[in-house]
Amino acid sequence: MTPDEARARDAADPLRGYRDAFHLPEGVIYLDGNSLGPLPRSTPAALSDIAERQWGERLIRSWNEGWIEAPRRVGGKIAKLIGAAEDEVIVADSTSVNLFKLLVAALRHAAPRTTILSETGNFPTDLHIAEGAAGCVPGARLNAVPRAALSDALDETTAIVMLTHTHYKTSECFDMSAWSAKAQQAGALMLWDLSHSVGAIPIDLNAAGADLAIGCGYKFLNGGPGAPAFLFVSRRLQDQLASPLSGWMGHAAPFGFADAYAPAPGMTRWLAGTPPMLGLAALEAGLDIWEDVDQQQVATKSAALFDEMAEIGASLGLECVSPADPARRGSHISFRHPEAYALCQALIARGVIGDFRDPDILRFGLTPLYLGFEDVVRAGEILGDILATDAHRDPAFQQRNAVT
Amino acid sequence: MTPDEARARDAADPLRGYRDAFHLPEGVIYLDGNSLGPLPRSTPAALSDIAERQWGERLIRSWNEGWIEAPRRVGGKIAKLIGAAEDEVIVADSTSVNLFKLLVAALRHAAPRTTILSETGNFPTDLHIAEGAAGCVPGARLNAVPRAALSDALDETTAIVMLTHTHYKTSECFDMSAWSAKAQQAGALMLWDLSHSVGAIPIDLNAAGADLAIGCGYKFLNGGPGAPAFLFVSRRLQDQLASPLSGWMGHAAPFGFADAYAPAPGMTRWLAGTPPMLGLAALEAGLDIWEDVDQQQVATKSAALFDEMAEIGASLGLECVSPADPARRGSHISFRHPEAYALCQALIARGVIGDFRDPDILRFGLTPLYLGFEDVVRAGEILGDILATDAHRDPAFQQRNAVT
Repeated sequence: MTPDEARARDAADPLRGYRDAFHLPEGVIYLDGNSLGPLPRSTPAALSDIAERQWGERLIRSWNEGWIEAPRRVGGKIAKLIGAAEDEVIVADSTSVNLFKLLVAALRHAAPRTTILSETGNFPTDLHIAEGAAGCVPGARLNAVPRAALSDALDETTAIVMLTHTHYKTSECFDMSAWSAKAQQAGALMLWDLSHSVGAIPIDLNAAGADLAIGCGYKFLNGGPGAPAFLFVSRRLQDQLASPLSGWMGHAAPFGFADAYAPAPGMTRWLAGTPPMLGLAALEAGLDIWEDVDQQQVATKSAALFDEMAEIGASLGLECVSPADPARRGSHISFRHPEAYALCQALIARGVIGDFRDPDILRFGLTPLYLGFEDVVRAGEILGDILATDAHRDPAFQQRNAVT
Repeated sequence: MTPDEARARDAADPLRGYRDAFHLPEGVIYLDGNSLGPLPRSTPAALSDIAERQWGERLIRSWNEGWIEAPRRVGGKIAKLIGAAEDEVIVADSTSVNLFKLLVAALRHAAPRTTILSETGNFPTDLHIAEGAAGCVPGARLNAVPRAALSDALDETTAIVMLTHTHYKTSECFDMSAWSAKAQQAGALMLWDLSHSVGAIPIDLNAAGADLAIGCGYKFLNGGPGAPAFLFVSRRLQDQLASPLSGWMGHAAPFGFADAYAPAPGMTRWLAGTPPMLGLAALEAGLDIWEDVDQQQVATKSAALFDEMAEIGASLGLECVSPADPARRGSHISFRHPEAYALCQALIARGVIGDFRDPDILRFGLTPLYLGFEDVVRAGEILGDILATDAHRDPAFQQRNAVT
């Protein structure tokens, strides 16, 4: 695609208007919205309002003026993006903490079954937290096996199948319906990590028959760095699971101040401490952009941006590790390259922000709401120029940062 | 004290200048800073900077430009207020989640001891979370007894003594040194909840020999609604305890993306998910006000404000449930009254914001950094007027809100 062709595609893009909803810095092509989504233009005003009016002027009274409902209200806005009912999703804590809560609860529910089944190479915090959760339930354990061995490992000891819908490195997706059915037929609960899927590709948890899910607010939902995360519990399980993190905000009567814990009905029981209102306000501003977005248009554009980037990669001799079939992938594309780290740094120095994943993955997020075809074509030109001139072999690009 | 005398006291107050660091709404006397501290004047700019410059302009690069260190950096600022070393405190999650992490870790460390000893009527989330934590360690249990029975209940089964330094209702304090020594002499670990103490009264955890502590960021530290919380682990225990919430940000190499969990050295292992940067920025703005504050001046003024409010209460025939001895209390005062709820609502309607605690407690936070003697005297006049005219018996003041 030539730059002129790319501009023409952008002009005809039905999602083009959403680009104006985001602040995209001058001189930057941002291909890392799958790691940290950019700032919505509406967010500074939302933060101002919650800080200066709601906190500053209304003070403690704001708890009765919208704050106490915020975890459920914002959860309801996420529910619409993942095929859940409004009362099946709540916003709380971080993705890691939410996963811990659901895993411990599900392990207890599934006794005498003992095993969390997952795949090696899953996003590390999922495996780490699963180890931690298993350590809190006598006899429980994590069994992580390669993807190809998952089916064989699913047996009568499996309590929960815990899978990440879209893989953080390869972008490969599991078939949500097929795996949910397979887990349940084996008598296990199915838990999905939606962190790299929500806001990127269409998800329908209830159509797929999923039991449990968690996900992240700061990637495709543009909720800000370390945004609060969400969790989903199917209505049919809501009364049967209780949080091990039995904090006061999940109590049936949090302001009754009783010594004994009694879980609240519905999703409220998954709250622990006081809701992080500044983070919730920013997440809600990010979610409000999604209100009228056509998810099918998002999927179509994601596939087209991917195809363009895949073609550029192929023309540069890069090995693409992401699936060719749009139905089997998320909205990022990854290439394997022995100098992936230095390439990533050289790209950043030229204003193209993607990211690196150990040991050899160069990853580009293709976020349909604000990226255009011209962005992808220009990023490809810069990547081609770096490779042609060996610009990434500058020693300055070899030195590792804390986070890439 | 007459209003003129109060104004004279305020004019001579060495802490008077700090009042300007806060936004105090027109027409409000805010006696609830022990529940939600008011907005620091510097916070909106701090939020603007993190949203518009750090997130908006620098995007993912900000993780290498100060974000990844923020939990330790902000923890170090809290350390100075609680008599801890900078590397003994980290900011993470909520108070409830931090308590859970420490209790599970400490129960495992203390095996074969099995009991968390605490008092009935402790802040509810502490007891609820202790139930939840005990449920994650085989054989463990919570034993909550009345304060007067604590010493007798401390025995060879006690793994952890978990006490709240300043009681949320009565304001009564435990003697931190005496109880830490008593717990340790019995072979138990001593864990303090500092939520109603930090920023209110002087605390010296290391002088007291405390083992573990947690605390809240949104009360006297003015970090904003649902601000991230903190935890303290004495250096001598840091290598021996590990978090059950073994998330990636507490990993020794979070960006090595290994399948197996390995806890980071020092306090970093207590992180779980991605740090909530907007909340951290607001908390840091609140803490920066404390940098040069003389804690002894805070204690002296707290005592004087309390004595004035106690005298007003006595003159109105109210039963004070807080200790008369300044060394035995925090920086709030509570009165018992059968119509406490309606009184609280009637006061709010007249611009005096205190709070109600079930079933019959009217509580006033006396926060030395921004309250003056004139505020207390005026609040007392209004309270006296309400009582004299039975204004609180208006049916409008009987109806319960979600949060008071």
